[in-house]
Amino acid sequence: MAKAFLNAKKGQYSTWPNPKVGCVVTKNERVIAEGWHQWAGQEHAEQMALADASIDYKGATIYVTLEPCSHQGKTGPCVDLILKSGIQRVVCASLDPNPIVNGEGITKLKASGIEVEVGIYEDQAKEINRGYFHFYEKGRPWITTKIASSLDGKISLSNGASRWITSELARSDAHTIRAMNDAIVVGIDTILVDDPSYSVRLETEDPINSPEIIILDSQLRIPIDAKILKNDKVVILCGQGIDQVKKESLSVLGADVICLFDERDKSIERVSEYLVSKKFHHVLIESGAKVNSSFFQNNLIDEINIFFAAKILGSEGLSSFGQMKLVEIPKHQSFRFVEASLVGEDVKLRLLRFTNV
Amino acid sequence: MAKAFLNAKKGQYSTWPNPKVGCVVTKNERVIAEGWHQWAGQEHAEQMALADASIDYKGATIYVTLEPCSHQGKTGPCVDLILKSGIQRVVCASLDPNPIVNGEGITKLKASGIEVEVGIYEDQAKEINRGYFHFYEKGRPWITTKIASSLDGKISLSNGASRWITSELARSDAHTIRAMNDAIVVGIDTILVDDPSYSVRLETEDPINSPEIIILDSQLRIPIDAKILKNDKVVILCGQGIDQVKKESLSVLGADVICLFDERDKSIERVSEYLVSKKFHHVLIESGAKVNSSFFQNNLIDEINIFFAAKILGSEGLSSFGQMKLVEIPKHQSFRFVEASLVGEDVKLRLLRFTNV
Repeated sequence: MAKAFLNAKKGQYSTWPNPKVGCVVTKNERVIAEGWHQWAGQEHAEQMALADASIDYKGATIYVTLEPCSHQGKTGPCVDLILKSGIQRVVCASLDPNPIVNGEGITKLKASGIEVEVGIYEDQAKEINRGYFHFYEKGRPWITTKIASSLDGKISLSNGASRWITSELARSDAHTIRAMNDAIVVGIDTILVDDPSYSVRLETEDPINSPEIIILDSQLRIPIDAKILKNDKVVILCGQGIDQVKKESLSVLGADVICLFDERDKSIERVSEYLVSKKFHHVLIESGAKVNSSFFQNNLIDEINIFFAAKILGSEGLSSFGQMKLVEIPKHQSFRFVEASLVGEDVKLRLLRFTNV
Repeated sequence: MAKAFLNAKKGQYSTWPNPKVGCVVTKNERVIAEGWHQWAGQEHAEQMALADASIDYKGATIYVTLEPCSHQGKTGPCVDLILKSGIQRVVCASLDPNPIVNGEGITKLKASGIEVEVGIYEDQAKEINRGYFHFYEKGRPWITTKIASSLDGKISLSNGASRWITSELARSDAHTIRAMNDAIVVGIDTILVDDPSYSVRLETEDPINSPEIIILDSQLRIPIDAKILKNDKVVILCGQGIDQVKKESLSVLGADVICLFDERDKSIERVSEYLVSKKFHHVLIESGAKVNSSFFQNNLIDEINIFFAAKILGSEGLSSFGQMKLVEIPKHQSFRFVEASLVGEDVKLRLLRFTNV
């Protein structure tokens, strides 16, 4: 099963909206075939493993990281393929939380006399598809915010300068985080001050499905020559009554302009609804104090990835979160630390939210 | 030698102004005596180990973490004692940087025909007496600042509330840090807002020499009933022209009031001179943004111990450092991370300054 997970991981940057799945087929204690899912619309892990006509699968065991699908999607149901192949035993790490599968694949296999084991390494199965499970269990994506901060909690100087707080290694780690997400959310202030490109530059053999870039820009203030507009998939969420000519120019540049907020309502709830409607499983916030605070105050941040540089920027600098209007120190932690590691000259801390409200 | 260091460590909270020293005496590959230095004025490690009249030290080897002293201090020179004992071989981890010893002990031993080895585990020897070495090599104490911060870099809310940002375990770790220092520096603002006691509460079998509490209070604003005044050794550094009656009352309470600053000069340099004049080796800053910044900007912080809680306090909160007036992000790190660990629910990061200017 460990090998099956390694196979699944090859799809870590590309399978959305499908889950990452890997498998291994063994017979007489030897691996006779392997497979992984790479891209929505392309073959599933099981299909890849069972496609070789020169292999005799009769009596073999398939180890798969997620329940085989039982429905006709862009590809045929994997369950039928398994039944046809002569495979005798199916070991899968977890049920598929997607309601169109959820247990049905297993039921169908068992009904056909196949030996089935479910729940081996279930934790890893949920870990590798954290956002996928979260989406089907909680009804919204797994949202991570990534922050590059000085030791005193600043993400830029008062003049807006923020290049570069963290070291090169930490910044390249950030590209990996981007690639693992289906969408990146950024506020217009960050674009106006930093003009970031938010491209994904990554040295990897694994295929990359670039994340959708979602810009929160209620008044459509984004400059026409903003670097971020050069990305493939750009969506600008704005308010009513914006400049239609500018909207047109942005559309010509390939950006999708969606009027989501009414004038008095820039609510983060609209954004959240949008993320759900697009079925994003993993969403990354890579923005400034305001966007971080809005998501945090709406209990929408599930994970924090914060890189601390060993630099002191001083109290005039901009903080990583905006106003909170607290009158007392919260008794309990909002998050728990799950990782503290050195990345280049910096320290990376990973935190997960305590409860998923 | 490892055992000698363990012995030295027993004096970690108590030997100032002397260094921590431990030793082990072996003969025929057996430990026949051990010793450690506990308290200035009391017996040195070598004296403790060589005091047993029932032991025959002839031909033995003594392992000692620091060069034996050659001068008459509050106790007689250890070198003479070693010569008298019949010990044949001396292995010491490092020379003593104190100019009244520095190599002379070794020279004297060698001249008397004793086999001497120096420099075994020298790094550990310098580590355990970091401040002592720093004091004699750089002419000033090793200064550590301890910070309890939220994840967004805040040490209190805008209303001053700071209890408690970090968890109980992190706070008890802070007591250990206090005990390891010879003096604690705190600004008057912290006292006015927090009224901390700065007592050392520690469960340990090792003796504790309470640190001197140094309060930076140029206008003598400290309340007469401030909890911090209950400590044994309290020094208030103030400016000229302060209220003499108040000074008198504070003296009655046991506090030493020293007029160190002239009206226009509250310079941190005066404070630094005071620390040197008192021969402190390890000094802890446990204060707010202003004091942290002043020491940092004067290149006087050698180590940062920062505890991050998994809480977000918001941009209105007080930052861990004050104004820096930077116009660009520093290219290089001021510090390097040497430790990142979980302490209770919090993360502790330890940083050392890159260069000791």
